[in-house]
Amino acid sequence: MDQYIRVNPDKLSNFCKEVFISLGVSDIDAAITTDVLIAADLRGIASHGTARLVRYVKGLKQGMMNPACKETILKETMTSLVTDGNAGLGQPVSYRTMKKVIEKAEKAGMCFAAVRNSNHYGIAGYYSMMALEKDMMGISLTNSAPQVVPTWGITALMGTNPISVAIPAGKEKPYVLDMSTSVVPMGKLEVYNRKEQKLPLTWAVDPQGLSLDNAELGLENILNRRGGGLLPLGGIGEENGGHKGYGLSLLVEILSGVLAGSAFSDMTYPKDDSGSPLPSGIGHFFGAVKVDIFQEMSLFKSDMDLLINKIKDSKKASGQERIYIHGEKEFEQTIINREKGIPLHAKVIESLQSIGRECEVPFNFSDLQKR
Amino acid sequence: MDQYIRVNPDKLSNFCKEVFISLGVSDIDAAITTDVLIAADLRGIASHGTARLVRYVKGLKQGMMNPACKETILKETMTSLVTDGNAGLGQPVSYRTMKKVIEKAEKAGMCFAAVRNSNHYGIAGYYSMMALEKDMMGISLTNSAPQVVPTWGITALMGTNPISVAIPAGKEKPYVLDMSTSVVPMGKLEVYNRKEQKLPLTWAVDPQGLSLDNAELGLENILNRRGGGLLPLGGIGEENGGHKGYGLSLLVEILSGVLAGSAFSDMTYPKDDSGSPLPSGIGHFFGAVKVDIFQEMSLFKSDMDLLINKIKDSKKASGQERIYIHGEKEFEQTIINREKGIPLHAKVIESLQSIGRECEVPFNFSDLQKR
Repeated sequence: MDQYIRVNPDKLSNFCKEVFISLGVSDIDAAITTDVLIAADLRGIASHGTARLVRYVKGLKQGMMNPACKETILKETMTSLVTDGNAGLGQPVSYRTMKKVIEKAEKAGMCFAAVRNSNHYGIAGYYSMMALEKDMMGISLTNSAPQVVPTWGITALMGTNPISVAIPAGKEKPYVLDMSTSVVPMGKLEVYNRKEQKLPLTWAVDPQGLSLDNAELGLENILNRRGGGLLPLGGIGEENGGHKGYGLSLLVEILSGVLAGSAFSDMTYPKDDSGSPLPSGIGHFFGAVKVDIFQEMSLFKSDMDLLINKIKDSKKASGQERIYIHGEKEFEQTIINREKGIPLHAKVIESLQSIGRECEVPFNFSDLQKR
Repeated sequence: MDQYIRVNPDKLSNFCKEVFISLGVSDIDAAITTDVLIAADLRGIASHGTARLVRYVKGLKQGMMNPACKETILKETMTSLVTDGNAGLGQPVSYRTMKKVIEKAEKAGMCFAAVRNSNHYGIAGYYSMMALEKDMMGISLTNSAPQVVPTWGITALMGTNPISVAIPAGKEKPYVLDMSTSVVPMGKLEVYNRKEQKLPLTWAVDPQGLSLDNAELGLENILNRRGGGLLPLGGIGEENGGHKGYGLSLLVEILSGVLAGSAFSDMTYPKDDSGSPLPSGIGHFFGAVKVDIFQEMSLFKSDMDLLINKIKDSKKASGQERIYIHGEKEFEQTIINREKGIPLHAKVIESLQSIGRECEVPFNFSDLQKR
């Protein structure tokens, strides 16, 4: 049985921040990076929360991420921005770039930014949602390690490349799409592997391009770039639209990789001759667009509420109780987790304790509550 | 057996144009609308080509589309445009709006436009591709009649809502994504119905939310709004990411409907008390973004070629000979169809002949070639 323990978000946040600082990250960058991780945990996206701290610690120690560097702006127009992350942590450069995008959009109506030479930036939705408080629509994309095969191909040449778009509503919660462009992200294979469950045949292919139900083998093939990979949204072949998911994944690869002047496809996450990881070289793409350059804000908001309620109130399929709008589950999780604490898997607690010892940051949660 | 006859594109184009003119459409609007239809036929997207002329004729005669009206610009900023289609044909307003979007993007770096109160605009990719010759990325979205159910729902509350994005490349053909956000568009059900073939169980649901393999019944349910509908990309439920396709479809509904101040969801394609169609009220969303505000153009193009060739040259799944980039099949079809003629189904020829008689436009194709 999986065992989860609920942890106070503020204490967890302080712990993470101290860990980053102990590794040479500035106070402010540690705070930003931590906030993105905690937001993922609060929203119930455990795969992108503090469970991932161990990878950042490793990345900072091994030189994939430079703790001390700051980004530089390479190019700027009224409506655009190109930032070089200089191989630092992905979160601070993304946060500051999106902030600047929003400022520029206030004047120009919209702004888009491409970030090159960055690293894993956490949940895509963190940045798109920053636009909401200014009554803007936000967009956030990133490429990632090559794990997804093109339709009819057997080599993983695209990342799971998430697309996040956030759009304000009125009384209802905003629409927040945050989706990988593969059928499932890698985290799903990890969960099935832990549970020793067989994968649905629609998720991944082996090095011959045939459906694969062995999660462990799938993970090994992908991580060691042995061929095969995750299937794009729509699955294998074209019958169920696999070529569409492939097209979306490729789109994100183009905007975050090619357009940003960043690494793309199988050139991301390179290693040196001894097999040690080099900076990942991945890139991001952000945007903010003011709603009221198109539609009067109050009318837009009431129409958003109308559309949302029309869908939520519509008839359910047999056996189903609710229809969700994108982001809704996460907003509800956030309320629960903020109040009751963030549920961490026993193995994550162990990994955090181990990080604490390694970085000499005390991990003391006297209030650990089993649920 | 399905029988196709190849028809000279220029003659077919002239015929269409004359039909539109006979119905009160201006010369220039008839030429634009025809060009979009012929482009679909040339690209091999027969469902959106002259096979659809009969619906436009009906729409113009019944008052869903006003042949004589012109669009008006309601709102304009440096980077944005809102156009009212005034219930005219969808193609002319879309063409002129996208043209203006591109002009404005030349100055501001980018521009987006929302069009309200329009009608069916043909293939989404026609407009996104207009940006290519100016070394811009183009985007084109539209909402459409409610045919797609939300995840866990059984009422069709979103259209098949296509997303098209066009991005220039160097020596290679540009990337042109043009995809409905459902597993398949309605046209696929029509094809299966004609062939009396059972539908894959992943395409549509009945009014109880259960998978449906009867194409005829599926079409009837959807067209008469009896419940059930097409499934969003990713299929039924969440296991294969159906909630992602649902999210994309909803995104297009928001941008083309809510943001544009246009009709959305089940409020599109209304009918009057006697059951006659009123203007559809659908909307579109267009955009153009200059590439070189982010990346030096020649470098961008050579990197696009690198990425495209990396994917195309990668290993194929067993039994497969080619991996395609989005738009590639259509570029190849265009060359073939321009040279050999546009293949029209015998039933389409019949419907065009009937339109010719109705509108008193001669349909004389002495060069009809069976293939």
